[in-house]
Amino acid sequence: MKIHYECFACAANQCQKIVEIGTEDLGLRKRGIIEAAKLMGRINEDSIPAVFDSEVFLGVYRVIGNDDPFKDYKELSNRLAEKVVSDIEKEKMDLRTALKLAIVGNVIDFAVGYSPERIGEDVGAMLGEELYVDHSDELFDRLGKAKILLYLTDNCGEIYFDRLFIGKLKEAFPHLKIYVAGKEGPIINDATVEDLERAGFEEFARIISTGTRIVGVPLDRVSEEFREVFGRADLIIAKGQGNFETLSEIKDDRVFYLLRAKCRPIARELRVPQGSMVCMRAM
Amino acid sequence: MKIHYECFACAANQCQKIVEIGTEDLGLRKRGIIEAAKLMGRINEDSIPAVFDSEVFLGVYRVIGNDDPFKDYKELSNRLAEKVVSDIEKEKMDLRTALKLAIVGNVIDFAVGYSPERIGEDVGAMLGEELYVDHSDELFDRLGKAKILLYLTDNCGEIYFDRLFIGKLKEAFPHLKIYVAGKEGPIINDATVEDLERAGFEEFARIISTGTRIVGVPLDRVSEEFREVFGRADLIIAKGQGNFETLSEIKDDRVFYLLRAKCRPIARELRVPQGSMVCMRAM
Repeated sequence: MKIHYECFACAANQCQKIVEIGTEDLGLRKRGIIEAAKLMGRINEDSIPAVFDSEVFLGVYRVIGNDDPFKDYKELSNRLAEKVVSDIEKEKMDLRTALKLAIVGNVIDFAVGYSPERIGEDVGAMLGEELYVDHSDELFDRLGKAKILLYLTDNCGEIYFDRLFIGKLKEAFPHLKIYVAGKEGPIINDATVEDLERAGFEEFARIISTGTRIVGVPLDRVSEEFREVFGRADLIIAKGQGNFETLSEIKDDRVFYLLRAKCRPIARELRVPQGSMVCMRAM
Repeated sequence: MKIHYECFACAANQCQKIVEIGTEDLGLRKRGIIEAAKLMGRINEDSIPAVFDSEVFLGVYRVIGNDDPFKDYKELSNRLAEKVVSDIEKEKMDLRTALKLAIVGNVIDFAVGYSPERIGEDVGAMLGEELYVDHSDELFDRLGKAKILLYLTDNCGEIYFDRLFIGKLKEAFPHLKIYVAGKEGPIINDATVEDLERAGFEEFARIISTGTRIVGVPLDRVSEEFREVFGRADLIIAKGQGNFETLSEIKDDRVFYLLRAKCRPIARELRVPQGSMVCMRAM
């Protein structure tokens, strides 16, 4: 997905949050923002928001001297989500509900203004919502025939819902070899390989790094190891907007997107109402 | 005033509003925003927000092919404000209340998210608020000795409150020669000389143009005529944030600022709580 007109102000607002959360020093905040403005001046009509934004954010991190401004927020998200998931009755849960929970988990995204305290109360309400696009029958059908699944995670917090879903996938498709990918290092509130290790994904899957801190799956930046797994996978489950933004450019029919269309550009691109939850095969 | 860290995202959000209000065409909106990003990449730590933003906005106007995106909004503001002011009992109003009304009128600013429909109900509430800094005694005292007053307007709508105040000034200081300045052409919702003419300022004052569409009083951009009047004035009343942002750099003790500190940077600069109304002599 190439940038839409709303992506610029959204990135600028995220940069402001980054400097506010990243330093108390007004002078450093200002230097960070000036760096953001300079880097954002390089935008062009083919820029992919996830990639472009990540480069800007990492530039701001460097200038303000904080390599992980969302550290506390991410820890809070993980702690809260782990608790919410542990309170859920998992024994009799079917695969479809677990898939939906994995999408519901995608709302836990500080970067678009979500407060983690509301996780618990919102989960119940959202589970009652229908998926606006639901290709889960096809996904499960194809998972029955697949040997290798690559699961691309998105945010901290959310990963505890992913773990629940992946556990159910492993139960339903015990033959499946599952790889679960996280970022190489901190970028906004995305889950890193370290977060995945701490969340205990190795119980069901092999944890791998995308090899980059850039959000999503920028295929020209990922590691050789990741590219190799990406090439071998029979199916790819891509969580969240960042993975969609990067993968939608390559039109790979092994990909299923699981996400909530939080912003207008994503909703416009997917041709769904803003706020919709979807399980959608790549077009 | 030089930019604060919040000025970048604020300008980016204003650019988004400009393209949304200025064109329905998504492709044009995107081109307008890319132009905004490129122009904003030139920011530096000495940039003055009003000047820098105006250059960016005019660049966006050019790209989207709309030279006055706020035309309808400004007309609505003017119409509503004219009605509100005509409903006010002016006969027995004292000068101090008229001054306060002129500050209250400063909240009519679409660019920071104000809906003109709320003008009427808010005016009453705000008239009850105290000025956080009140140098009006000194202002009136000095007006008694002054020969020439230059009154720098800010936004459409607001100018009807300015006209009421200027009428009262003319009553109280009949010897005073008053110049009232507007912008040379459309820039966001700022009042142009044409708006001042339509509002009938010539009853009390001589209307002049700053000679530029740049917000505020950028002394390197104004016309020779304006510069001459600016030089001759004994006192200068500067309405709103844009005039403050440009004039605060030259530290001219003839200037009194009448404004509401709508944003954090202005509040921080003036050392007042955000939202305060002030009548403040230049420092």
